[in-house]
Amino acid sequence: MNDFTRRGLIAGASVAAAGALPAEAAAPPKGKQAPSIYRYKIGSFEVTALYDGVWYRPIDEKFVRQADYADVRREMSNAFMPEEKLATPFTTVLVNTGKKLILLDTGTGGQIASTAGSFSDNLKAAGIDPKTIDQIVISHFHPDHINGIKTKDNALIFPNAEIMVPEAEWKFWADDANLRAAPDGLKIVFHNVRRIFAGIAKDVTHYRPGKEVAPGIEAVDAAGHTPGHTVFALQSGKEQLMVLSDTTQHPALFARHPEWQPQFDIDGPLAVTTRKRLLDRAAADRTLVTGYHFPFPACGHIVKTGTGYEHVPLLWNIAV
Amino acid sequence: MNDFTRRGLIAGASVAAAGALPAEAAAPPKGKQAPSIYRYKIGSFEVTALYDGVWYRPIDEKFVRQADYADVRREMSNAFMPEEKLATPFTTVLVNTGKKLILLDTGTGGQIASTAGSFSDNLKAAGIDPKTIDQIVISHFHPDHINGIKTKDNALIFPNAEIMVPEAEWKFWADDANLRAAPDGLKIVFHNVRRIFAGIAKDVTHYRPGKEVAPGIEAVDAAGHTPGHTVFALQSGKEQLMVLSDTTQHPALFARHPEWQPQFDIDGPLAVTTRKRLLDRAAADRTLVTGYHFPFPACGHIVKTGTGYEHVPLLWNIAV
Repeated sequence: MNDFTRRGLIAGASVAAAGALPAEAAAPPKGKQAPSIYRYKIGSFEVTALYDGVWYRPIDEKFVRQADYADVRREMSNAFMPEEKLATPFTTVLVNTGKKLILLDTGTGGQIASTAGSFSDNLKAAGIDPKTIDQIVISHFHPDHINGIKTKDNALIFPNAEIMVPEAEWKFWADDANLRAAPDGLKIVFHNVRRIFAGIAKDVTHYRPGKEVAPGIEAVDAAGHTPGHTVFALQSGKEQLMVLSDTTQHPALFARHPEWQPQFDIDGPLAVTTRKRLLDRAAADRTLVTGYHFPFPACGHIVKTGTGYEHVPLLWNIAV
Repeated sequence: MNDFTRRGLIAGASVAAAGALPAEAAAPPKGKQAPSIYRYKIGSFEVTALYDGVWYRPIDEKFVRQADYADVRREMSNAFMPEEKLATPFTTVLVNTGKKLILLDTGTGGQIASTAGSFSDNLKAAGIDPKTIDQIVISHFHPDHINGIKTKDNALIFPNAEIMVPEAEWKFWADDANLRAAPDGLKIVFHNVRRIFAGIAKDVTHYRPGKEVAPGIEAVDAAGHTPGHTVFALQSGKEQLMVLSDTTQHPALFARHPEWQPQFDIDGPLAVTTRKRLLDRAAADRTLVTGYHFPFPACGHIVKTGTGYEHVPLLWNIAV
């Protein structure tokens, strides 16, 4: 009918000679997820987002203070979460400063939900031996941030890493009076903290807000979620990354509605103030951020809206 | 001071005996991106999102019809795209039906932008030999969808695959009258189509909307973007996936503003009608969707808003 087809007919002869299309079976399905790792640079730092999975946390009408439960359910539905289950993804951040390999929080250690616990596999897929991690910096003592320090049988996972923790956090969870005063649900968290640090307490370093926990990584006060909750400002060359830790849980709920107070924010009103202060700054400065409970790979930006904030995920690049 | 610390001090003795913290150098940075692959199930089908990268396409005030350029720039800024560059990510979809391995569109073949072309590496990382792909189904003939059929030296990349193309698409691009009538920019696209199908035209199968291109994969008319532009409805068991192809380019612009007409929509008004029809349906049915130019891994859901639509990315799961 035209050049296109005619040229095709002539040049196609040799291909056609190769015979009919094969009827062979397809390759088998893989049946497992691909490695869940994403690398990006902040100046000369190489950052690796390592996914640990997601916990679909059952919630009820008491879970979010300062919110109408119908609104909470609507936002969960708009985010396509399962009915009355708050999707809580976990992404840890590994920073290679060129001099040190530093892990910010450690994941769930496979001790929280069957749909999480892939950190170790992903670390391996990233080509990192746990023995080569020099330093672990903990943002706060909730189990999903510290359980990865030890296996469930209490073996150390990163045998050569210095462990740094917020001083205020240590004081709060180590205080027996706080344990005695805590409701039962929170007592479990106290006991978990004690399990994790048993045997290693004297080797743990305590830091305060303002401390440069490593060259280019500054601890920034973010109290409210817990008394010693800390975020981290990374700077290398002219580039910055704000590691927001638990400033907000899933952004589809708690960045969009910064005044909502999830039950696990120990000081709800202070957590709101901190959340707004940090998200305001990230939005104004257009700083790259990463959040522990942001959807993997958990890095991106913050935009301020009329009523709250939106997380804008970073576009996945094929180069680092 | 309390049980916590005291127990730590006692049990910590054996750890302390192992000596001071090491001062060894960190592992070297990896310097390359991790495999960019995501797997999910639709019934018994295993779907693999394979990332090809992103083209940062320079645009100007003529690029989007029916829009104020200031609004376009504002949305690009809100999506943290580079100044006057439309981020155009590419994600191909591989479907293992259990009986066949079917690739929907083929990526850029490394022939469009230096920041794209990782499809082959990612296919390899996914453990798939190009020879095992049984069938390639093309949505339309823009270069970023068909160039991956051949290397830039015109060698076939998937030697055993049957290639299926939309009949209306073939007719349009094969018609010399259309080529002659096309503006220069579009003539390049006609010539590229002819290069890709030269030598294989007689082996290419033409399909029409409504055709089940494979059991469980139905071709659905989506004309407008191009005359034969096609989307695909996948169904396995009770689960569905709508493969939206180029129904919308980057959703931060063209889902949010479905009436905006990018220059490359050949019939702009028809593309708008098609876009709204398909996104309306996806939002109403809460169907899982994937879009070729959605941010990787490009799958998720559509929510209808007061003015347009939002893409809600699927939460990354550690299981398939």
